[in-house]
Amino acid sequence: MTQVLALSGGIGGAKLAVGLQHVLPPGELTVAVNTGDDFEHLGLAISPDIDTMLYTLSGLSNPELGWGRGNESWNFMAEIERLGGENWFRLGDKDLAVHIERTRRLNAGEKLSGITADFARHFGLLGRVVPMTNDLVRTMVITDEGTLDFQHYFVARRCEPVVKGLAYAGAADAQLGPLLQEASQDPSLQAIVICPSNPWLSIAPFLEIPAWRELLHEATAPVIAVSPLVNGQAVKGPTTKIMSELQLEQSSATIARFYEGIIDGFVLDPSEAHIVPEISVATHVTPTLMKTAADKQRLAREVLGFARSFSNL
Amino acid sequence: MTQVLALSGGIGGAKLAVGLQHVLPPGELTVAVNTGDDFEHLGLAISPDIDTMLYTLSGLSNPELGWGRGNESWNFMAEIERLGGENWFRLGDKDLAVHIERTRRLNAGEKLSGITADFARHFGLLGRVVPMTNDLVRTMVITDEGTLDFQHYFVARRCEPVVKGLAYAGAADAQLGPLLQEASQDPSLQAIVICPSNPWLSIAPFLEIPAWRELLHEATAPVIAVSPLVNGQAVKGPTTKIMSELQLEQSSATIARFYEGIIDGFVLDPSEAHIVPEISVATHVTPTLMKTAADKQRLAREVLGFARSFSNL
Repeated sequence: MTQVLALSGGIGGAKLAVGLQHVLPPGELTVAVNTGDDFEHLGLAISPDIDTMLYTLSGLSNPELGWGRGNESWNFMAEIERLGGENWFRLGDKDLAVHIERTRRLNAGEKLSGITADFARHFGLLGRVVPMTNDLVRTMVITDEGTLDFQHYFVARRCEPVVKGLAYAGAADAQLGPLLQEASQDPSLQAIVICPSNPWLSIAPFLEIPAWRELLHEATAPVIAVSPLVNGQAVKGPTTKIMSELQLEQSSATIARFYEGIIDGFVLDPSEAHIVPEISVATHVTPTLMKTAADKQRLAREVLGFARSFSNL
Repeated sequence: MTQVLALSGGIGGAKLAVGLQHVLPPGELTVAVNTGDDFEHLGLAISPDIDTMLYTLSGLSNPELGWGRGNESWNFMAEIERLGGENWFRLGDKDLAVHIERTRRLNAGEKLSGITADFARHFGLLGRVVPMTNDLVRTMVITDEGTLDFQHYFVARRCEPVVKGLAYAGAADAQLGPLLQEASQDPSLQAIVICPSNPWLSIAPFLEIPAWRELLHEATAPVIAVSPLVNGQAVKGPTTKIMSELQLEQSSATIARFYEGIIDGFVLDPSEAHIVPEISVATHVTPTLMKTAADKQRLAREVLGFARSFSNL
């Protein structure tokens, strides 16, 4: 059963997902995760946002790095360097297990959704973590240095190139698996939550898939987005740098406009409250910075309370 | 330049190779390594004997296990187990680097010989480590439980099934690369040494390749084999168990007969000296148990001295 279907990228979105997982009855959360950042590296199929979500929801993530596994060791990486292999994308020894098992199973013909569900089960999760699609979607960053693969832009080039635009290769033809269709039509569904992820990098890949737009339009549960901005800045990542480079005003008003026609409600930080008059949908103002477990749970509860206010109309 | 061309399997052969590397001028050793034990595991191309040779010659091997890397960590393996992945073949975190890089480069179309040469260079070796062939040869063990892949027999089934015979799939069609042809025709070549490896599991895969038989026949340098038996027993591994199951007398005489027509000289331990009268080629009796670095160097020196005795005839 799915009381909440969340759409998320990696680190920022996973924080709210942890809160939602805690406040919902066990197993009632389904998180759909961006796969536009997925890539092949050292011959391995890497799904950075799925792994961040699995690790974060299971309490196995690295709280310092924000990505990868806690208590990680880096012996593999040191040896890859010794062999002259590529070292710009860091793979920890524990982390390697998901990449190798995923690659092996994908090559054996399994679907990413089935593999991810199995990993989630082995990580002890009761809810569901589902790739946004099993089809290949690749976020391409059009920059002043040319069009870059997402990880090349994000990790290898540390988001330094100036972003001129974004493209989501494969999105127009991507399909949704049955797990997502079921979750969105679950009679117990209370809310579809767009987590405070980067709209252009982490949520746009969903929205460029026609079946996702359709799902969001047809869902009877309210669609609530949480702005990732606090004081006009992203907590982490290149959101505001990209907004500036795309000539967009660095405020939650821009985020709300980006989600216009999709969302029923918008949650934003008090530091952004001055833009509420510019927003065409219902808003809920509450602190969105999630530092502690209590922060995450409180925000999750408020998002769910806000969602309930729509069904009470 | 190659003063010595050695043929070897894994652990036992690598000990003599270390001795040869020490006593020869830097870079004058070429070791051809059995690839009949190679297999694919977790989607990775594993070459156990090549890796044992690289690690042993570079001083990075695990002296306790006899395989894999020293100061190894096992975090990847613990996580593969958590994910329900196969755990019967243990891959350490450091060790993984060669498997992942090799797999990536093979899939990119590189030859195993080029990849191995590059690894040897990165491991600081001055001599050459060369796969016996770049073509696919797979040792199959015909047992009372059916025909098993080598690693399935050796690791998963711990050599327990009774061996009825051996087959070397692909050997008849396998070719030799130019590195091996060059080494065997090097005017400075003093000896071709068959290391004290298991004849049926580690050396037979060479001998089943027609070009290797030809190379050994045509070489002007003497071919010297070192018996792996001490007191009628192998130091490690299933050599004598297999000899018994194949109805072969468990003595160095059987080993010498196995190499008949190929070798010019045979080195054996004093504990096996009683079979010298049965041997049709020149023999050299000297302790072959290699526990210390000094043991390995002394045996290497004696093997080279024995080889020189042929050119002095």
